[in-house]
Amino acid sequence: MTYCVGIQVEQGLVLASDTRTSASFDDVRVYTKMHVFDFPGERSIVLMSAGNLGTSQAVMARLQRDIADNAHTNLRTPRHLFEVAEYVGQALVAAQAQVASNALQNGVNVESTLILGGQIAGEAPGLFLIYPLGNCIAASPETPYLQIGESKYGKPILDYLIAPSTSLEDAARCALLSLDSTIRSNVSVGLPIDLVLLRADDVKIGERMRLDADSKFYRDICDSWASKLADAVQRLPRFAWEPANTSTAQALPLAQRKPASYAEQQIGEGAAQQ
Amino acid sequence: MTYCVGIQVEQGLVLASDTRTSASFDDVRVYTKMHVFDFPGERSIVLMSAGNLGTSQAVMARLQRDIADNAHTNLRTPRHLFEVAEYVGQALVAAQAQVASNALQNGVNVESTLILGGQIAGEAPGLFLIYPLGNCIAASPETPYLQIGESKYGKPILDYLIAPSTSLEDAARCALLSLDSTIRSNVSVGLPIDLVLLRADDVKIGERMRLDADSKFYRDICDSWASKLADAVQRLPRFAWEPANTSTAQALPLAQRKPASYAEQQIGEGAAQQ
Repeated sequence: MTYCVGIQVEQGLVLASDTRTSASFDDVRVYTKMHVFDFPGERSIVLMSAGNLGTSQAVMARLQRDIADNAHTNLRTPRHLFEVAEYVGQALVAAQAQVASNALQNGVNVESTLILGGQIAGEAPGLFLIYPLGNCIAASPETPYLQIGESKYGKPILDYLIAPSTSLEDAARCALLSLDSTIRSNVSVGLPIDLVLLRADDVKIGERMRLDADSKFYRDICDSWASKLADAVQRLPRFAWEPANTSTAQALPLAQRKPASYAEQQIGEGAAQQ
Repeated sequence: MTYCVGIQVEQGLVLASDTRTSASFDDVRVYTKMHVFDFPGERSIVLMSAGNLGTSQAVMARLQRDIADNAHTNLRTPRHLFEVAEYVGQALVAAQAQVASNALQNGVNVESTLILGGQIAGEAPGLFLIYPLGNCIAASPETPYLQIGESKYGKPILDYLIAPSTSLEDAARCALLSLDSTIRSNVSVGLPIDLVLLRADDVKIGERMRLDADSKFYRDICDSWASKLADAVQRLPRFAWEPANTSTAQALPLAQRKPASYAEQQIGEGAAQQ
């Protein structure tokens, strides 16, 4: 599986994705699910993918080829980001159609789902979820984030904390916590994490980083979060029968961290599901 | 859907369940999913159910009848809690078998999954997850909680915080936060919450309560948690390009609470899934 999240706040966009791909429990690999098409000052587009890895790679190859060939429609031609999402949706449908009849026979799901975030000069930034059918929905002030893949574990932290007025950096921290929550609770989602920030009106990738277990910043965020959660639980209202909380209260023992990951394995038979 | 969680810590057991049952989006009702069989000093057993409501009710009716009839095997006869779980598993299989052939034809899933927590005098407390096949697994120090129903949203908070040495009351607060996380993020799980605490070696229900939106204690827990999370995010490590955090930092705007629930509806056609 996969977990990717895009957040749209007033200050811009945050996009974050894990990198674990698995065709089965004994066929687990690392692949980026974040694809950046940055033309500073003109347009900046980031795509994240969940689902069939072959389909996702076919779509990305097609998008790159269309740019290189200067095709009639490519990522650089639409005047509006919504049209870019439609064009990517068509490329997604085409990639799935190519293998659909064989896939059906073999019981393989070749569908992928994408998140597109970006900005075209002269427009506000935009964030879209592109479905396997090629249609798409946009983020909105009431729904300021979009998720694909294993989305349930990391949803509450976003529902608690994200609003359009959240700062871009706080939104990025929330995205990392949403990933950390998912990675702790589900072995099919794993480090490293790809993270991109696009500041509204910059029309370029603002910050881009890969965070792994040996990244001090990411480790500090996760450790600090775990201890702050434990501390927060300690300071919640007490049940009627409990004595009042005192400052000498014992710290809540932290649950052991789950084993960080299962090892990467050799390449399998091409049915890899991100 | 449903969300129920059982937590086993050294000090005892916590069991918590939501009460929303839905056969479809326009057939949503309130039913308890927590069934208490308390014989203080002898044995105390709590069952929670997810899945087909008809099956769950058939099981509970059978368990009550077997006690009333003083059947050869009933909840009060086994000497070990594991045997109680096996007996309940057999009752579950029987309830499903009764309607299975018709269900298959109608495409209705009649399976239920149960959590059993309790204690028999002379034994330590125990916590079991009983599968639709009638087999079961126990909680353990490495896996101190068990969930049924919509379990993903509320899992990270448990993975962050629950250890065998967690106090019973902190475990109960974590269970409520796990429910609150799920209720905020999924409309198929809803208030009120049933909560039971069993203190190790008491062999009786220690505390039992129903918490609803108008329960000040529950509202205080949820509101306090939301603001503590927002505060914790503010105090996480900063990105390299950010200025250092100052005490005058603006509070993170809290995301709007989701609409609390959809209204209860009239009774439908008996395919209700908890």
